[in-house]
Amino acid sequence: MSGSVFGEIFRISTFGESHGSGVGVVIDGCPAGIELDESVIQYELERRRPGQSELSTPRDEEDRAEILSGVFEGRTTGTPIAVLVRNKNHKSGDYGAIKNLFRPGHADYTYYKKYGIRDYRGGGRASARETIGRVASGAVAKRFLAGLGVDIFAHVIQVGDVKADNFDRSYIEQNPVRTADEKAFPLMERLIMDAKKEGDSVGAVIEMRAAGVPAGLGEPVFDRMNARLAYAVMSMPAVKGVEFGAGFAAASMKGSAMNDEITPGGFLSNNSGGTLGGITTGQDIVMRFVIKPTSSILVPKKTVNIKGEPAEIVTKGRHDPCLAPRAVPVAEAMAALVIADMALIHRARSGGC
Amino acid sequence: MSGSVFGEIFRISTFGESHGSGVGVVIDGCPAGIELDESVIQYELERRRPGQSELSTPRDEEDRAEILSGVFEGRTTGTPIAVLVRNKNHKSGDYGAIKNLFRPGHADYTYYKKYGIRDYRGGGRASARETIGRVASGAVAKRFLAGLGVDIFAHVIQVGDVKADNFDRSYIEQNPVRTADEKAFPLMERLIMDAKKEGDSVGAVIEMRAAGVPAGLGEPVFDRMNARLAYAVMSMPAVKGVEFGAGFAAASMKGSAMNDEITPGGFLSNNSGGTLGGITTGQDIVMRFVIKPTSSILVPKKTVNIKGEPAEIVTKGRHDPCLAPRAVPVAEAMAALVIADMALIHRARSGGC
Amino acid sequence: MSGSVFGEIFRISTFGESHGSGVGVVIDGCPAGIELDESVIQYELERRRPGQSELSTPRDEEDRAEILSGVFEGRTTGTPIAVLVRNKNHKSGDYGAIKNLFRPGHADYTYYKKYGIRDYRGGGRASARETIGRVASGAVAKRFLAGLGVDIFAHVIQVGDVKADNFDRSYIEQNPVRTADEKAFPLMERLIMDAKKEGDSVGAVIEMRAAGVPAGLGEPVFDRMNARLAYAVMSMPAVKGVEFGAGFAAASMKGSAMNDEITPGGFLSNNSGGTLGGITTGQDIVMRFVIKPTSSILVPKKTVNIKGEPAEIVTKGRHDPCLAPRAVPVAEAMAALVIADMALIHRARSGGC
Amino acid sequence: MSGSVFGEIFRISTFGESHGSGVGVVIDGCPAGIELDESVIQYELERRRPGQSELSTPRDEEDRAEILSGVFEGRTTGTPIAVLVRNKNHKSGDYGAIKNLFRPGHADYTYYKKYGIRDYRGGGRASARETIGRVASGAVAKRFLAGLGVDIFAHVIQVGDVKADNFDRSYIEQNPVRTADEKAFPLMERLIMDAKKEGDSVGAVIEMRAAGVPAGLGEPVFDRMNARLAYAVMSMPAVKGVEFGAGFAAASMKGSAMNDEITPGGFLSNNSGGTLGGITTGQDIVMRFVIKPTSSILVPKKTVNIKGEPAEIVTKGRHDPCLAPRAVPVAEAMAALVIADMALIHRARSGGC
Repeated sequence: MSGSVFGEIFRISTFGESHGSGVGVVIDGCPAGIELDESVIQYELERRRPGQSELSTPRDEEDRAEILSGVFEGRTTGTPIAVLVRNKNHKSGDYGAIKNLFRPGHADYTYYKKYGIRDYRGGGRASARETIGRVASGAVAKRFLAGLGVDIFAHVIQVGDVKADNFDRSYIEQNPVRTADEKAFPLMERLIMDAKKEGDSVGAVIEMRAAGVPAGLGEPVFDRMNARLAYAVMSMPAVKGVEFGAGFAAASMKGSAMNDEITPGGFLSNNSGGTLGGITTGQDIVMRFVIKPTSSILVPKKTVNIKGEPAEIVTKGRHDPCLAPRAVPVAEAMAALVIADMALIHRARSGGC
Repeated sequence: MSGSVFGEIFRISTFGESHGSGVGVVIDGCPAGIELDESVIQYELERRRPGQSELSTPRDEEDRAEILSGVFEGRTTGTPIAVLVRNKNHKSGDYGAIKNLFRPGHADYTYYKKYGIRDYRGGGRASARETIGRVASGAVAKRFLAGLGVDIFAHVIQVGDVKADNFDRSYIEQNPVRTADEKAFPLMERLIMDAKKEGDSVGAVIEMRAAGVPAGLGEPVFDRMNARLAYAVMSMPAVKGVEFGAGFAAASMKGSAMNDEITPGGFLSNNSGGTLGGITTGQDIVMRFVIKPTSSILVPKKTVNIKGEPAEIVTKGRHDPCLAPRAVPVAEAMAALVIADMALIHRARSGGC
Repeated sequence: MSGSVFGEIFRISTFGESHGSGVGVVIDGCPAGIELDESVIQYELERRRPGQSELSTPRDEEDRAEILSGVFEGRTTGTPIAVLVRNKNHKSGDYGAIKNLFRPGHADYTYYKKYGIRDYRGGGRASARETIGRVASGAVAKRFLAGLGVDIFAHVIQVGDVKADNFDRSYIEQNPVRTADEKAFPLMERLIMDAKKEGDSVGAVIEMRAAGVPAGLGEPVFDRMNARLAYAVMSMPAVKGVEFGAGFAAASMKGSAMNDEITPGGFLSNNSGGTLGGITTGQDIVMRFVIKPTSSILVPKKTVNIKGEPAEIVTKGRHDPCLAPRAVPVAEAMAALVIADMALIHRARSGGC
Repeated sequence: MSGSVFGEIFRISTFGESHGSGVGVVIDGCPAGIELDESVIQYELERRRPGQSELSTPRDEEDRAEILSGVFEGRTTGTPIAVLVRNKNHKSGDYGAIKNLFRPGHADYTYYKKYGIRDYRGGGRASARETIGRVASGAVAKRFLAGLGVDIFAHVIQVGDVKADNFDRSYIEQNPVRTADEKAFPLMERLIMDAKKEGDSVGAVIEMRAAGVPAGLGEPVFDRMNARLAYAVMSMPAVKGVEFGAGFAAASMKGSAMNDEITPGGFLSNNSGGTLGGITTGQDIVMRFVIKPTSSILVPKKTVNIKGEPAEIVTKGRHDPCLAPRAVPVAEAMAALVIADMALIHRARSGGC
């Protein structure tokens, strides 16, 4: 793993900037024989793309996936699967005004410090458009995991101060916030639309659940399943924290309340979030993570230009006032990539001769 | 990275169980020419070892570090540095009673599911004794980073419901809780001692700060500095969540409050926690993580034996009622390992010809 | 490294089959600021492509490289560089006759055994067309290395029993065999044309030289420069052996003849081939490797079909009777990838604080 | 893989210098449940150790292996297996005379260039003593492979100009040269003893065979089985070349002779050396490699000191006049490590859901 390569066995290499000629991914290590065509990938890309509702930026790209290799007669061959999505709607002119300014909250400043280059075209590699490669490869990982009986989904459980209390899985894909709580939805939606009107943005919390994960996945001591998932989700843009099971609430708990009792019928609770010692228990993996409010806002802010001189900035253009709804499929993709990889690593490392 | 190997350039491979003949680490990729002797490692091991106060288990091992290789005439040679700490105080007899039971909250169940083996000797590889290899190698990473001007420390900011409000760095190593808040200390101590008397345990939150980290470290898009740190700290025993800067509070924030403004004199706030786009800004890295209450408690709990039959269990023996004080040096070690690695990777990947 | 990923810091991920929609590569870890455009890559692809002379197959594809990402305003940005070459001349109909037969000397049999899939379209991933990704990324590595003063080239030193005795570097690219010996060229050419007429093929030996490599590159004990180069060149199709410096002749030498003496003016000989203990000496790296005769021949041979039944086969179609001339740029690419990677790794691992 | 870490799943990390306090290895990724105790490792170390006959240096160390972790009740647990061998016979005084001189043919010069450190104690990390970690871990890999039916052995097929013509496997361990040719043995022995008397040394060729390797191992396109084996064997001290099957002789062959025909009963020849397209065929893997003559000789040679001033040097002390006999178990170990790793990787990457 390094830079834009992720995973050990089910290994991806993503590429592409917001304003280059395309973005995509190469998947190396996907087993042979899995049914795959472009529609599997396209389905997830549609869930990620902008312009799905008035809650998100209207950048209306097709984001059409092309499989370049690794599939023959509708099945994976075991060789690298390359997926390309062309960039069609560059409009780099939109960004000219802030060409020499570092947008607060964005990676402009740090990319410049790191690489000595100011790719001012909409964030370059730091653009959320980079996540297309993740979602495309995650779609393949999901397909692989479906064969193992693993079911992964995510949903928005908090927007600003509004928290979801109810859970109706079927509702998630029926509302543009992607919450599972029909009552919380209008409140969440209003918060987002209000922020939009103010030229501001709002943060959120997403929960990811993986059901059907076999017990025994995760490689101590460093490659715990939860450690890998935390790594994966923290590598997504705008994520500032992650927790499992009881999470931060565990600080206030006693061991007598925290420990999940075991019975012949299974565990009696899931404070652990699906792992013990970093190895899956067979219970659901439950992970939550926080997405900061979108950095691109119309509220004026202090910054400096590339010469270090003071300036004021507002970030015009098309931006989601809340990143969470479109981060849902990205989180699912990252979880799928990790679980697929850990399943394959376990297959390699377990068993004797 | 896989299993017990961690890091890409500054790479460690740890080994050892609680009741084998020794634990330790091999460090590959530490640059040559760094001053090092056993006292550097021993200093950190002393901070980690049990029996430092009545808050922790009295298991009074010497935990004496021996450098087996990689150091010549007081300096690192660039070749692998192996460190061995012998296990002296096995007392595996203590564990006989629960030989065939899975302790709730422990990794007994999952190790058995994964490996098909029941190493009942005090947790085997899942014992916290495993962290000696982390601390020993972290001491070397800290020494390397000191030469770059990086200063890493951690402290306990919450025990149960008691939160630290004040910060006095010099106080951290003067109290057995390792909090920086002199007023909170007695309350935290009382919570821990009360839990101990009840045969119970209590959770906590630790904050890690790294100052002096140069801007530009972190490798997008996956190997963000914060993603690697999250990975590292989530790989520690008993950690259930991690956050950076504003963390989970960012869910309730507006972008206009979250974005750290930039001036010619620097950033005006640090909600980002020291990274933007996963690359260090030059500000302090600020990370917090939660440690669950110790799983070993005297309160009776339901469990099953390796045949799947129901049983009741209490975990006798020597256990810290709160893991946080001794987790402080482990967290510092993990942070040091990540930052050293990212500094070396950046050195490799940056710059042109 | 695994499967189709190669390198640690300067890391490539190649993809594509002979009869899919495209082949290419993603380069992750190339430093920022290197001048690069498609012509740099195209130049090397032209040297690799079929149809350059009557010595090679007339498959006359354009093999036009498109850079999809990682380059901005003519320079690398430090982010992944993706290169795509479309397949235009599929003609998979040519292969229908041998659809269910395993061609002797080819990877048909082993791919089927490994993946359970028979991709009969011209070798699939095992086709030499796969090397386009190597050559494209090698062109970038060469460009990077040129900035360090490293100069890499290869030439054919043996075809069948004809060995080159003279060396004129400027002659290499002036003859279709790519030998540096003007006298040997017509003999080599005749051997190849004779084999072609017979429907047969012939083997060869190539020498690769890298000049200007700084002393100190290579990471003991496993990642010796020569070990990595051997790995790289043995990963090319049809290579059956590799040697450095004195090579296999060292078996018959005494230490008193083998040891390269050192003087204040430098080494007096180069039996070592440019490394000692796997670390570069600053002398030229000298590597030779053997390419087996092309497996696709018109001479009838025994084989079996996918049911295991006996059959006889001839391999019609377009094939180079000698693979060496087109393997020259591939070998240069692989050497460049290794040396660039080792230079970057050394940069990371060397130096103290 | 990097530096002293080798392998992807069956991954080793070796450590130790000739004159430090110990050498050894940590194995991460060995499956659980394999029978293992110290005698398995000790057996191979005895084959590697000096002083087995008058053909080798009399350095008579015990080289006693201690397993520090990863084994419980006689079986591997799936956790890291650490093996330590103490250095007992330092005699670093022997090396004082050449403290500031670079020994020709040795890695003294390049280590100094790389690390800026002159560890004059018998080669430091570049000493052949480093191979103990390889042999110890290779013994575990062999044990794992035995369970898969894989049988690995090596033997000396050439010393100086004397080549073996006959093959009697049972004879290999009955003669100190480790040749399988009883007739060639006395000639080989005489060459070595003559070189010893002259204070000189002699080169050799070793053949490694692996039988019973299942078809399908090896990961195209880079991690071909033969590429990994070449990498492994070229990482051994003093190796200058490696070939498979027909090897360099393939340069003079026609395709019609080279291609191994396939019949329902199997392949009719093994010019490929056991792989096609880098994937095992199920035939024996046949690899040969050349070992240069020992660099430590009594014949005076020109060199420079660390100031760059001219000097003359002879290398006294205890040295094998031919490295090959003791390199046999090292080669077997490296082959076993590669094949075990490739078997586990294949297990991970193959198969569908």
